[in-house]
Amino acid sequence: MKLTKNTNILIIGLGLMGGCYAIGLKKNGYKISAITRSQSSIDYALENGIIDHGTTKIDPELVGNADLIVFGLYPAVFIDWIKENQHLLKEGALITDVTGVKTSIVYEIQSILRPDVEFVPAHPMAGREVYGVQNSAGVNVSEANFIVTPTDKNTEENIETVKKLGEEIGFAKISTLTPEAHDEMIAFLSQLAHCLAVVLMTCNDLNNLEDYTGNSFRDLTRIAHINENMWSELFMMNKEALLNQMNLFSKQFDKLKKQLENGDTDGMKEMMRRSTVRRDKFDKK
Amino acid sequence: MKLTKNTNILIIGLGLMGGCYAIGLKKNGYKISAITRSQSSIDYALENGIIDHGTTKIDPELVGNADLIVFGLYPAVFIDWIKENQHLLKEGALITDVTGVKTSIVYEIQSILRPDVEFVPAHPMAGREVYGVQNSAGVNVSEANFIVTPTDKNTEENIETVKKLGEEIGFAKISTLTPEAHDEMIAFLSQLAHCLAVVLMTCNDLNNLEDYTGNSFRDLTRIAHINENMWSELFMMNKEALLNQMNLFSKQFDKLKKQLENGDTDGMKEMMRRSTVRRDKFDKK
Repeated sequence: MKLTKNTNILIIGLGLMGGCYAIGLKKNGYKISAITRSQSSIDYALENGIIDHGTTKIDPELVGNADLIVFGLYPAVFIDWIKENQHLLKEGALITDVTGVKTSIVYEIQSILRPDVEFVPAHPMAGREVYGVQNSAGVNVSEANFIVTPTDKNTEENIETVKKLGEEIGFAKISTLTPEAHDEMIAFLSQLAHCLAVVLMTCNDLNNLEDYTGNSFRDLTRIAHINENMWSELFMMNKEALLNQMNLFSKQFDKLKKQLENGDTDGMKEMMRRSTVRRDKFDKK
Repeated sequence: MKLTKNTNILIIGLGLMGGCYAIGLKKNGYKISAITRSQSSIDYALENGIIDHGTTKIDPELVGNADLIVFGLYPAVFIDWIKENQHLLKEGALITDVTGVKTSIVYEIQSILRPDVEFVPAHPMAGREVYGVQNSAGVNVSEANFIVTPTDKNTEENIETVKKLGEEIGFAKISTLTPEAHDEMIAFLSQLAHCLAVVLMTCNDLNNLEDYTGNSFRDLTRIAHINENMWSELFMMNKEALLNQMNLFSKQFDKLKKQLENGDTDGMKEMMRRSTVRRDKFDKK
C-alpha cells in the first residue's frame, strides 16, 4: 500500500512514541485514530488535537478499517495483541512498530502473522527519559534517526511506505539495517550507555553530590532516570548482544584501571587519543 | 588582602580557564595582566579585550606588582613555577589556582611556599572539551560551581577574597570543601565519568555508528573528546581516590551483568528504580 492523506492510520498504544507519530502525522494533514489503555491519554490527545478519534476498547470496526497500524506497545504486549486480535485486521493491512530491539520480536511476529497482512518493523531512535502521550510533544524527531529493519518477508512497496511514514513524521534521517545489525548497534549505542548511567548512579552511597555536579556528569547520567519496566524488558530481549558489549566494556575498563594502577600514563594517553579521534566522528555535521 | 577594582590581578597560564577568569573579571571592570607561553594567546587576548597587558616572559616587575595571582597551569608546571620564581612574588600576595585535583597539590605548594605569601586553592568546576584562551568565551560559568578548598594554613580574609573572586567571575555557586572531600567527590563526579566515556568510545571496533547515534550516546560521550595530557595527569594525581571509585563501579557493573545473565529482571528493575530516584536529585532546580 501507498501512504496518502486518505490512508486510515491507527495507532495502538498511545504512549510517548505513539503520540509522537500522531503529532508529526497530524501536522502533515493525516487523519489519526488511536486505541490505548487509559482514558486520560485519549482525553489528553483529543483535547490537544493530537488525534481525531480514540477509544480504550479494541473496536473491531476501527481495527478492521485501518490501512496502516502503528503498534506503540511493549514487545510482550504487542505479541499478545497480534495473537488475540489479528483476525480483526483488514486484508492487505500494513503494520509497523516502534520497538527498540528487533531480532527477538520481528521474526516471532512475522511467523505468527496472517499471510495477507505485512509487518515492516521500524525503530524510531528518538525518546525521552519521560513517558506518556503528555510528553510526546517534547520528543525531538527533527534530529533523530528512523531505522527500518525489513526481512526477506517484506515487499519493496511496503518498505518504502514505512520509510515515507518516518519522513512524514519528521525524522531527520531514514535508513535500513538488518534486524541483527540493528541489535548489535543498539546494544552498544543505546543499551550499554543506559547500563553505564544506571551503574554510575548506583555504585556508591555518596550523598549531596548534586551541589557539586558539573554539566558532564549531568549529561552522562541524564538517562539514569529510566523506565525500569521498559528497559529491563529491552535488555532481556537483546540479552546476548548486550552481554557481548558489556564484556567488551569490562575488558577495556580493566585495562584503563591497570594502566592507572601501574602509572602507565603513555597507555592512558594512547587510549584517550583514540577516544578523541573516534568521538570526533560523532559530532553533528 | 581584599579584592577591589585597584587590585593588581595577574593570570599565569592563559588557557581555557585562565581566559575564562580574565573575561569574567574584565566584565566587572578589573584590570588584568597575563603571562603565558604562547604569543598567539597573548595576541588573541589583547585583540579581543580579554586582558589589558600580556607577555610571554616571566617579567619580574609584573610578577612583583601583583596582589592576586591566578595560576592556570598544569599541576606539575605550577609546582615548578613556584620553586623557580617565588622569590619574585610581592610580600603579602595572594595566589590561587584552577587545578581540578587538590590533595596532591595543595599541601605540596603550601609546604614550599614563602611564609609571607598565601595560597588559597580553588577549583572552578566549569570547562569544555576544547582548550585555549580562544575557547574561553564559550565556558558557561553562570551555571557552574566554584569550590574553594582551604586548609588550616589559610586565613579567613583570604578565603573570603577567593570566594569573592569566584563570584566576580560569575560562578553560580560558591562553596568550600576540604581538599580530601573535594578529591573523593571529583573522583566520582568527574574522573570516573571521563573514564566511562573514554572506555565506551574505545571498547569495540564498530564503525560508522555515527549514522545511528541518538542524543543519549552523544551526551554520554561528549567528554570522550579529551585532552589526554591534562586528564592523564589529573588521574595520576588522584590515583587512590579514582581507583576506589573505579572498583565500586566495576563491582556494580558486574552485578548488573549477572542479573542480565540470570534473567533477574526484578534485580535489574530495583537497580533502575534506585538509579531514577538518585538521578532526580541532580535535576536543576
